[in-house]
Amino acid sequence: MSQMAKIGGLSGGGVERLTLSKEDKEARDLLMIWMRELGLKVSVDQVGNMYGEWGNSKNAAPVYLGSHLDTVGNGGEYDGSLGVLAGLEAIQTCIENNIELSKPIGLINFTNEEGVRFTPDMMGSLALKGGIGVEKVMKIKSVDKQFIFGEELEKIGYKGTRKLSEFKATAYLELHIEQGPVLESEQLEIGVVEMVQGISWNEIYLTGQSNHAGTTPMHLRKDAGYVAASIIQYARQLTHEIGDRQVATVGMVEVEPNLINVVPGRVRLTVDLRNTDDLQLMEAEKKLIDFAKKIAAVEGVEIEINSLVRFQPVPFDDSLIALVEGSAKEMGYSYKRMPSGAGHDAQMMAAICPSTMIFIPSKNGISHSVKEYSSPEDIEKGANVLLGTAIRLAE
Amino acid sequence: MSQMAKIGGLSGGGVERLTLSKEDKEARDLLMIWMRELGLKVSVDQVGNMYGEWGNSKNAAPVYLGSHLDTVGNGGEYDGSLGVLAGLEAIQTCIENNIELSKPIGLINFTNEEGVRFTPDMMGSLALKGGIGVEKVMKIKSVDKQFIFGEELEKIGYKGTRKLSEFKATAYLELHIEQGPVLESEQLEIGVVEMVQGISWNEIYLTGQSNHAGTTPMHLRKDAGYVAASIIQYARQLTHEIGDRQVATVGMVEVEPNLINVVPGRVRLTVDLRNTDDLQLMEAEKKLIDFAKKIAAVEGVEIEINSLVRFQPVPFDDSLIALVEGSAKEMGYSYKRMPSGAGHDAQMMAAICPSTMIFIPSKNGISHSVKEYSSPEDIEKGANVLLGTAIRLAE
Repeated sequence: MSQMAKIGGLSGGGVERLTLSKEDKEARDLLMIWMRELGLKVSVDQVGNMYGEWGNSKNAAPVYLGSHLDTVGNGGEYDGSLGVLAGLEAIQTCIENNIELSKPIGLINFTNEEGVRFTPDMMGSLALKGGIGVEKVMKIKSVDKQFIFGEELEKIGYKGTRKLSEFKATAYLELHIEQGPVLESEQLEIGVVEMVQGISWNEIYLTGQSNHAGTTPMHLRKDAGYVAASIIQYARQLTHEIGDRQVATVGMVEVEPNLINVVPGRVRLTVDLRNTDDLQLMEAEKKLIDFAKKIAAVEGVEIEINSLVRFQPVPFDDSLIALVEGSAKEMGYSYKRMPSGAGHDAQMMAAICPSTMIFIPSKNGISHSVKEYSSPEDIEKGANVLLGTAIRLAE
Repeated sequence: MSQMAKIGGLSGGGVERLTLSKEDKEARDLLMIWMRELGLKVSVDQVGNMYGEWGNSKNAAPVYLGSHLDTVGNGGEYDGSLGVLAGLEAIQTCIENNIELSKPIGLINFTNEEGVRFTPDMMGSLALKGGIGVEKVMKIKSVDKQFIFGEELEKIGYKGTRKLSEFKATAYLELHIEQGPVLESEQLEIGVVEMVQGISWNEIYLTGQSNHAGTTPMHLRKDAGYVAASIIQYARQLTHEIGDRQVATVGMVEVEPNLINVVPGRVRLTVDLRNTDDLQLMEAEKKLIDFAKKIAAVEGVEIEINSLVRFQPVPFDDSLIALVEGSAKEMGYSYKRMPSGAGHDAQMMAAICPSTMIFIPSKNGISHSVKEYSSPEDIEKGANVLLGTAIRLAE
C-alpha cells in the first residue's frame, strides 16, 4: 500500500491520482511491473482497463478480483487501491503457496472509477458491461474541456487491444473501504455487501422575488430561501416517513443575491435520495417533488426540477454473498450484511457475472479526503476474507 | 431629477454614485451650482455634509430638508436624490413666491448614507449627531481597503470647515421613497412616517460534519445544512408568534463543501430581525437564539452566534408627525401612518432636533435596483407635502 500511495502522494497526507494523469500512468506502470514479476498474463483493453491473470483459462472463466487506482482530488490512499492491491496479494499468496485451483484467478484495475476528470464515473466497468461504446468513450471531453479521453489514454500508453466484448468471468469480487461510519460505530470488522443503493439526484431552481428585508411585510414576500429551507426540512422528514433504508441529503444550496438585508430572490439546491428498494426510492422522489411544488406555490415562488442522475438499486449475487459471509464467519470476524451507499465498479460487473463486495471500516466514516483511514489490522482481515472467498470460488 | 440622474447614469437605466467617487463629486458640484443660483448661503462641514440656507438665521435655527445624493452599486435615481432635490425645489418655491417665513429654511446633502464604499452607513448624519468623531471618520478605510475616507474627501474637494458641533435646527424633514410595497399595495399616496424600526443583525456559524450522502445513516449525521434550514423556518414562525410588527429575513446562506453528494459540514447564515417595538425585538432575538442553540445541540452541530448590528427603534417627533399628516389631509391625499423599515439619516437627526419623514410609493416595492421607480405624480404629491409642512414649520 505504502509504495503505491507515494504515487500522487500529497505533502500533508492523502493521494491525488486523477484519471489518465501523469500520476495515474505511474501507478499503472508500477502495477504492471508487479503483475509481471508474479508471472501473470497481462493485458489492457480498449478503454484502458488492466488485467493480470494466473492459471489456465481454457478450463473456465477466471474469478476476478479488483477495483481502481484512480482517486478524487485531495483523496485518500485506500479508496480503490485497497481492492487492487489486496487482489494482487491474494493471487501472490495462491502462487507462493502452490494452492491448486480449478479456475484461473485474475486482477482488474478499472479505468476512471471516480469520474472527477472525465464523466461518467465507473467508466471502465460501464464500458465493459456494454453500457457505453468504445467510440463514445474515446471522444469524451474532460470536465475542464481541455482534454479528450482517447488522446489522453494513448498519451499515457494504456490504449489496449483486448476486446471488451470477449470478456468472460466466473465471478467478480471487490474489497473496498466502507466510506461510511456503520461498521466503525457498530464495532464490526467486515461488511458483507448485499447490494448497491439506488440513487436519485435532482436539482431544484426556485425563483421568488428579491426584496428589502426591512420594508417588505411578511405576507407580501416571495422568499426562495424559505421555500428551500422547507424542502431541506421535508427531505429529513421523508427519511422518517419511509424508514431506515431511505437517506436524503441536500448538499448544495446557492442563494441570490445572498445579502444580509435582502429577501432571497433565487435559490438552487440539490436533493440526493438513496434507497436499496427501488419502489421506496420512487415513493421518496414523488413525495419530495409533490411537497416542493406545493410549498413553492403557497409562497408564490416558481419552481423548476431537473433529474440529474437516476440509478436503480443493484442486488449482488446471493450465493456469492453467502460465500463471503461464510468466509468471514469461518475466520471468526464480526460482520454484518449491509448495502453499499456509494457506487462501485462491482455494480456494473453485476450485469456480466456473479459479483459482490467486501467492506472494511473507515475511520470516522471519512473518504474522498486526505483524512481517509483504515487500520492495518482491518485491512488484513478484509484481505483474508477476499482471499478465502476467491479460493472457494476458484477451487 | 433627470439632470441629476445623468450623473452616474447606467446605460441600462439606474444610477451608480458611490460615496466620494468621481460621480459623487459631479453630483455635489451640480447641487452647489443650483444652490448658488438660488442665492442660498452655502457651506460644507468637516465630514462633507453640504448645506444651503435661505433666510436670516439670527432669528431662529433653520428648518432643514434633505437626504443624500450617494447611491448603492447598480442603484436607482430616486433613493436619496428625491429628498435633496424636492428640498431644493421647496426652497426655490418659497423664494420665487416671496413666501414670508419667520425661520430660515435649509437644505442638507448628507455624506455616505448608503455605506457601500465606506462603512458605517448614515455616516454624515451619525457624525453630525456626535455618534462618531471627525478624526475617526477621516481614518475609515474603504471596504476594499484601497482608500482612506479623509483622503478621498479632500481629493474631491469636499472637506469643509463648518463645525459639526455648531449645528442647530428647528426641525428636520426628509422626503424618501418607501422602498417597500405597502403604499402601492394599499393604493395610498403618502406615508406619514412615525418611526424607524429597530434592527438586529446576527450571523450564525454552524459546524457539523461533512460526510458521504450515500453511506452515512441519518441518525449518525451532523448536518449543518439541516440546522440552518430549521433556523430559517423558525425565523418565519417567529413573525407569526410575535405579530405584525416583526419581520425576519435570512438573506445570506453559505454552505461548505457545497457538493451534491456530501452532507454540509459548515454553514454561515445571517438573520435580520426588525421591529418597531424594542421589547418585541428583544423577545424575537432571544427566541431565535434559544431555538438555534437547541436545534444545533439536538443535531450535534456546534454553533457560534455573533451580533453584527443592533439599533433600537427611533420614534419621530409627535407634533411633526401630526403636521405632516395635517398637510397630507389638507391636500386631499390618501395616506397612512407607518414605520420605516429601512434606516435613514432622519433617524440620526432625531437625536438632535424634531425630525420625521414623508414616504411616497415605490413601484413593486423595489429599491437599491435599477428597477427602482416612483411616478412623477407621486413625486409631486410628496414634494407638496414636504413644502406644505416646511412652510408651517417656518412660518
